[in-house]
Amino acid sequence: MAFGWIDEQAQARRRAGLVRTLRPRAADSPLLDLASNDYLGLARHPEVIKGATEAARRWGGGSTGSRLVTGTTELHGELERELAAFCGFEAALVFSSGYAANLAAVTALAPHGSLLVSDAGNHASLIDGCRLARGTTQVVAHADHEAVRKALGTHEGPAVAVSDTVFSVDGDAAPLAELASACRAHGAGLVVDDAHGLGVLGSGGRGAPYAAGLAGAPDVVATVTLSKSLGSQGGAVLGPAHVIDHLVNAARTFIFDTGLAPAAVGAALAALRLLRREPERAERARTVAADLHARLTAEGHETVRPDAAVVSVRAPSPEQAVRWAADCRAAGVVVGCFRPPSVPDGISRLRLTARADLTDGQVEHAVRAIGETRP
Amino acid sequence: MAFGWIDEQAQARRRAGLVRTLRPRAADSPLLDLASNDYLGLARHPEVIKGATEAARRWGGGSTGSRLVTGTTELHGELERELAAFCGFEAALVFSSGYAANLAAVTALAPHGSLLVSDAGNHASLIDGCRLARGTTQVVAHADHEAVRKALGTHEGPAVAVSDTVFSVDGDAAPLAELASACRAHGAGLVVDDAHGLGVLGSGGRGAPYAAGLAGAPDVVATVTLSKSLGSQGGAVLGPAHVIDHLVNAARTFIFDTGLAPAAVGAALAALRLLRREPERAERARTVAADLHARLTAEGHETVRPDAAVVSVRAPSPEQAVRWAADCRAAGVVVGCFRPPSVPDGISRLRLTARADLTDGQVEHAVRAIGETRP
Repeated sequence: MAFGWIDEQAQARRRAGLVRTLRPRAADSPLLDLASNDYLGLARHPEVIKGATEAARRWGGGSTGSRLVTGTTELHGELERELAAFCGFEAALVFSSGYAANLAAVTALAPHGSLLVSDAGNHASLIDGCRLARGTTQVVAHADHEAVRKALGTHEGPAVAVSDTVFSVDGDAAPLAELASACRAHGAGLVVDDAHGLGVLGSGGRGAPYAAGLAGAPDVVATVTLSKSLGSQGGAVLGPAHVIDHLVNAARTFIFDTGLAPAAVGAALAALRLLRREPERAERARTVAADLHARLTAEGHETVRPDAAVVSVRAPSPEQAVRWAADCRAAGVVVGCFRPPSVPDGISRLRLTARADLTDGQVEHAVRAIGETRP
Repeated sequence: MAFGWIDEQAQARRRAGLVRTLRPRAADSPLLDLASNDYLGLARHPEVIKGATEAARRWGGGSTGSRLVTGTTELHGELERELAAFCGFEAALVFSSGYAANLAAVTALAPHGSLLVSDAGNHASLIDGCRLARGTTQVVAHADHEAVRKALGTHEGPAVAVSDTVFSVDGDAAPLAELASACRAHGAGLVVDDAHGLGVLGSGGRGAPYAAGLAGAPDVVATVTLSKSLGSQGGAVLGPAHVIDHLVNAARTFIFDTGLAPAAVGAALAALRLLRREPERAERARTVAADLHARLTAEGHETVRPDAAVVSVRAPSPEQAVRWAADCRAAGVVVGCFRPPSVPDGISRLRLTARADLTDGQVEHAVRAIGETRP
């Protein structure tokens, strides 16, 4: 039996209470969403939808080829220029996902003989990037810039430190300024994934590198996603123009992937323009997150103070986390449930995401549901 | 200088004539396209565009989260059911790209201690999948099923053979029946990437595994892309239901990636339904390819007989390939130009793609332009 071993793993998962199943959602669900990454509430904004539909009508359902063949439309160029300008970087390159953008940035910037210093809490896509890169990876303790400095000090030749700006599980921020200083002391590059920072942190949502004064620096590369605050799909790498040119020539997930679909490019562009016009959305997302945290803490939940728009609430066990999330859903509130093996530290949580368009009443409803269903 | 080494690589590329630059295309280009992978001419079909726009209007610009949190809409489920049924497999799982689908299938089906036997001509995404997998990879000669059989014979425990069904560079087909027989003799699984087969090969475009009588087999897993024949974006893994369940639980590029955007799901679904209604499109793409090949061969070009819709024409050198493609473009015809390092054998080519909607006059125009600009 070719795939017989799969059934043994499935049985082990069932015994451990760790089976995952897909739950397709309806378009007109009455449930209150505190699980998506639609931080600015833009995914269903009329202008974003119009950006998608107009792009599909003008350019078609797909980009028809890899970016270097037929998959780059003028619309891709427009999004890349406006995204780079907004975030304060010289150039940008759009990918079909943030995962692909991270694989590209990490692998292309870590040649043979290089060192990658990677935070223990990094996203799976950064970890896979390190594993695919031709350099040697050293994993350091979470959010520990001294450990990064020490690791970089042991190496001669090209080196990069790799970190999320906001960690997706607990919503805590990386010490960006200290990381940049450690990198500079050793002539190393800094590659940061701002998936959860863009649209939430920095002036008007320009992101964590912008907020830390690192946007546009010659030794800093940021990746972002178009699928969270920008309500669309895809990812991008932001950095100095010669680094972006290098990715065009060397990054496998750029060269060998079909270009992002026009509708996704159009939706992201519309969301970006909307955010530029309504910069207060970024602050509102942070305010909602702080409010959620304060109310949950006041009710005795063990939560992590949010640095962006992710609010993490500890659960006693994986089984109880699953049950808690299900009970919240029964009470009308959808929350995320993170548990092994998707969490680096083995701790199960409810993961709530603040959205700029949540009303105070909705926040109260959510806090009440979470409290009443507490295991 | 953190990224100083990049400039040395850029200089070396310039000296070797291997610099790649993006060329954004206009929506209303008058050029004849023989470079895209839009094999059935569906990317700009009104029904496909309507599929995209209606999905964006109903579901929003993005899927808002990872598939296991909020990123699975009912539309994703619909596409998965219809795609599996069409291709003859028990179940399907949709990804944000074919690249992600390949990383998922290969890594999740090759556990610690397993053997991966990989064709030397495989696509970059399968190669990266092998590099990320926890098993050991043995690369075998291109399209050599005896070598696969031999490699599998050296191993105890889980094993998979991994191959494109149609190789993207030369358009030649893998010996699927023989590969399946080699795998069965050793209790190994067969993982095939049908990116260039779906919509072109098999009855009504059901793909290469269907054509080979392998669709739905308990030991066969196929990946497809939604961005070629289906004119959209994304990818999918097709296989037995317990294998698909395993991917939901174990594949990192499924668990940690945002779900495919609704517009891309809707476009792919519309294209699939159109293909079901107009199965002759698949045969027409093959006929155009055969015609292109016959005419080019008659004019003395060194071409590979196409097994699907890709027609490869040898060029004398990378520089001349680039020049040839540029001259074709000046003559009104866009062709692909494949050269190192994107080709496994170091041989530069023009790469032409046949489309079901090309007229005989357009084929003649293309053949004339290619002949007149020959280096």
